[in-house]
Amino acid sequence: MHRTEADPIDLLRARTSVKWRNYPEDVLPLPVAEMDYPLAEPIAQALHRAIDRSDTGYASLAPAVAEAFRGFASTRLGWEPDPERVTCTADVSMGIVEVLRQAISPGDRVIVTSPIYPPFFDLVTEAGGVVEEIPLAGGIRDGWSFDLPAIEAAFAAGTRALVLCNPHNPTGWVPARDELARLADLAAGYDATIVSDEVHGPLAQPATPYTPFLTVSDAAREHGVAVTAATKAFNIAGLKAALIVTDSERGDRLREAMPLEVSWRMSQFGAIASIAAFTEGGHWLDGVLGSLDDNRRLLADLLEEELPDVGYRVPDATYLAWLDLRALGWGDDPSEAALERARVALVSGPTFGREVGRGHVRLNFACSPEVLGEAITRIADAR
Amino acid sequence: MHRTEADPIDLLRARTSVKWRNYPEDVLPLPVAEMDYPLAEPIAQALHRAIDRSDTGYASLAPAVAEAFRGFASTRLGWEPDPERVTCTADVSMGIVEVLRQAISPGDRVIVTSPIYPPFFDLVTEAGGVVEEIPLAGGIRDGWSFDLPAIEAAFAAGTRALVLCNPHNPTGWVPARDELARLADLAAGYDATIVSDEVHGPLAQPATPYTPFLTVSDAAREHGVAVTAATKAFNIAGLKAALIVTDSERGDRLREAMPLEVSWRMSQFGAIASIAAFTEGGHWLDGVLGSLDDNRRLLADLLEEELPDVGYRVPDATYLAWLDLRALGWGDDPSEAALERARVALVSGPTFGREVGRGHVRLNFACSPEVLGEAITRIADAR
Repeated sequence: MHRTEADPIDLLRARTSVKWRNYPEDVLPLPVAEMDYPLAEPIAQALHRAIDRSDTGYASLAPAVAEAFRGFASTRLGWEPDPERVTCTADVSMGIVEVLRQAISPGDRVIVTSPIYPPFFDLVTEAGGVVEEIPLAGGIRDGWSFDLPAIEAAFAAGTRALVLCNPHNPTGWVPARDELARLADLAAGYDATIVSDEVHGPLAQPATPYTPFLTVSDAAREHGVAVTAATKAFNIAGLKAALIVTDSERGDRLREAMPLEVSWRMSQFGAIASIAAFTEGGHWLDGVLGSLDDNRRLLADLLEEELPDVGYRVPDATYLAWLDLRALGWGDDPSEAALERARVALVSGPTFGREVGRGHVRLNFACSPEVLGEAITRIADAR
Repeated sequence: MHRTEADPIDLLRARTSVKWRNYPEDVLPLPVAEMDYPLAEPIAQALHRAIDRSDTGYASLAPAVAEAFRGFASTRLGWEPDPERVTCTADVSMGIVEVLRQAISPGDRVIVTSPIYPPFFDLVTEAGGVVEEIPLAGGIRDGWSFDLPAIEAAFAAGTRALVLCNPHNPTGWVPARDELARLADLAAGYDATIVSDEVHGPLAQPATPYTPFLTVSDAAREHGVAVTAATKAFNIAGLKAALIVTDSERGDRLREAMPLEVSWRMSQFGAIASIAAFTEGGHWLDGVLGSLDDNRRLLADLLEEELPDVGYRVPDATYLAWLDLRALGWGDDPSEAALERARVALVSGPTFGREVGRGHVRLNFACSPEVLGEAITRIADAR
């Protein structure tokens, strides 16, 4: 497998995105989920061409985005979504909110399985729901699983939906097909809805492919809605395009009940970039997966050598590491000490769930091996 | 005043935006509000540079957008908005929805002054409100004004908000300062909120400058929230960046009560393009205003010559003409006959308000004089 190499640090510091503008220059930023790799050439070319033809009006490309995604999903993800059952919108978070608004009534409870991508808490609230946090079972040592008995009890008590993160952020866990099937059966038993964020799906390592939720079973298709995008795998989160995908009449009803305006929110450049990514980005993505495979192992070696008492489980997908830093004695939120003492920016563990995130951080290893090495050394030196 | 010239038609047909993809090639498209001018060079350069540095991550540029807008507004609009009182989001429509969600309770009535930009009806509904349509007083012959007695009666009966379009779409009407002041006083009298869409503001002709609502009076600042963007004046609607602006503690409370995620929805390229537009786009915009000034007069001449019984009032702002085609006998929605018989795409009048829009269309004259001339000739030939 070939490698896509990270940009040099001086070029990275010229970027104006969150990762590169939220911290002083002496800080190594490994927080928000942006990658340090250069933009895939087919995406760059498609965007340059769009500028040259002044193609900056309202996006009309939703059918083309859906068709491009069908090709990508069928080639790489073992999934053949129906382009007719796709609504495009601006980003995955907005898609989750809009699906939830249709799936629940104000005040209904919605499960999130912590530790979990922090905006999930806000998105449930924004949609009028009440967060029901059900921590994952297991952990860094033994691997994760859903706490199915607790989820069933919640559904039985009237909880109306669950926001799934498949693959899972921040742990990089790829839930197995049979576990997703059991989750779908639970939802079916109580007529609940599973909204599955699958934006990290294309970043599952080839040895551990992720299972698109809508391929799992009839129950999953009936009770699931997938929300996905090219934005995470191709590092174009700032360009704003996402897909809401259904595969049942129940799902279609939720999708089609959304306000028409929702589908006008995709950005034209997000659409153009997504089409290029899905149709021509495979080679670049393979290189990124190779580099991430190297880095996830390198991180294990670095920790073993310099911080052996830090908890880490090599993730099967994406570029995020969920680290247990409690042995460092840096308190409930070790990201503060990491920033102050080590000048390394990480994401605060408790934002992923106050209890389960205590003493933890999320580290983004989509960087050069040198930056990753320096970050770990800085943390080790600061302890 | 110099002129910015429209792109040639073969280059326009290479665009993939709504205006150029929704109709067969034999149709002249003058519907959705996109302009046929080439992208302003400073915007094109800023976007090319962003691609070259792979600057496609999460937008962090809200403060820079707000500061750039302050400079632009202060130079060109006679308005000095406080950058600290700005929240950025993806587009003006989303901004209106989010402000309304905070300003009203589900089921509250919200005024729109028809004929009005069709999505306003949907945005009120999306925010949980009930549309109260109060047609503008006056009309094409004598000019427009607000029906202030009807608006006061609605506020007195419990209506909680009004969505203002300033300058007004589709008529191109620029409400006078004193009329806006009376509207603000009415809102103040009943503690209602005015959400002012000012995206067409920079396209007011120099002889008839528009009045930013928040500059009108203390009552306007107290009860108004402005939502604006570079997207209309600089033809970058597909890039997704907008500003929600307040200038009072009451306004700030509405703005700050919005979910945090709302501010993460601006696109990075929308932000980069908006900064370039606001700081370096003035010369290009002057050229566009010159061309639009020519075209609004040319349209009057063309109609006088070829369709003298069509009602048209030369607009004081933007590039939209509200045409009364009832004399043509083309029914309630003359856009259908215009498309079928004349192969000219216009926006259906009744979508701007079922009664007031009967027999009307909206025509977009941000095109070359040749295209405008051919469109009118086609319509004249088809009658």
